[in-house]
Amino acid sequence: MDFTIREGQAGDCTDVSRMIMELAVYEKLPEQVKISHKELEQDGFSDHPFFKLLIAEVSDENKSKDGHTKVGYALYFYSYSSWKGKALYMEDLYVMPEFRGKGIGKALLKRVAQISREQRCCRLQFTVLDWNTPSMEFYLRLGAQDLSGTEGWRVLRFEGDALDTLAEAAPKD
Amino acid sequence: MDFTIREGQAGDCTDVSRMIMELAVYEKLPEQVKISHKELEQDGFSDHPFFKLLIAEVSDENKSKDGHTKVGYALYFYSYSSWKGKALYMEDLYVMPEFRGKGIGKALLKRVAQISREQRCCRLQFTVLDWNTPSMEFYLRLGAQDLSGTEGWRVLRFEGDALDTLAEAAPKD
Repeated sequence: MDFTIREGQAGDCTDVSRMIMELAVYEKLPEQVKISHKELEQDGFSDHPFFKLLIAEVSDENKSKDGHTKVGYALYFYSYSSWKGKALYMEDLYVMPEFRGKGIGKALLKRVAQISREQRCCRLQFTVLDWNTPSMEFYLRLGAQDLSGTEGWRVLRFEGDALDTLAEAAPKD
Repeated sequence: MDFTIREGQAGDCTDVSRMIMELAVYEKLPEQVKISHKELEQDGFSDHPFFKLLIAEVSDENKSKDGHTKVGYALYFYSYSSWKGKALYMEDLYVMPEFRGKGIGKALLKRVAQISREQRCCRLQFTVLDWNTPSMEFYLRLGAQDLSGTEGWRVLRFEGDALDTLAEAAPKD
């Protein structure tokens, strides 16, 4: 099946929003999705975009059973390593289930890797859920290192009340 | 001991570069530091900065045994959650050993949390090495969630040859 990988535009946000939810359902954390396609449009396509998109698209004759031609996406942004400089962070890589096994995920990832190189990024980083064996195997087979395994990095986060409390804490608390 | 927390400027990069190396030595990964203070200056203080800095400074009479008054820093940048929107990522938080236990790390972190709120970020995220018990305890005590523990997120990375190979792979490899 032929497909194309192209840069995402504001007009893709409705489809990306749909696929963000599909990915969250697959990751068993759908209740965490709070963002609308309108917010995605604002955040990604204003004067100061907070992320960039790649879209995988198939021709109309190969559309999904629900009629979609935008069947995968990657969402990434620039990050920074104080050890090595400019880096690229891939927040999401997703291909709709009925389009898996056709090289679309690999093609999206390859394009993200090319952009990393074109933009002189020292690395391409991302996180994967430990129970998500197909994804872990996909990335490790392609040469990714598991930094949580080799160096012991853990992901921590302040949000909601914990973030408010921290922001409002007395200096000497 | 009095100290101030202020935004970092290009002129702080020599001191930040020194502290980046001190932190990498503490994290037992000093060989990974490849960046010079000149590159830090370029990357952080051009028209399109890739990170922002906070500096903790003490008065001259409280300077370190080696004569330093810039004794801690935080390095952060904006990231993006496709589930919740704009987010803040803290790459580094560091206080020189002889200035620990005085609330400087907490004050730096509190300021980062305030900036997260001011900039309407949904969360403040970072990584910690699993053997770094004092840091893990410091963050967890302040209300951070350990996402690697609760949800199972692992940090993965392509870099060097693995990133080149991926970027150059044939589409159907």
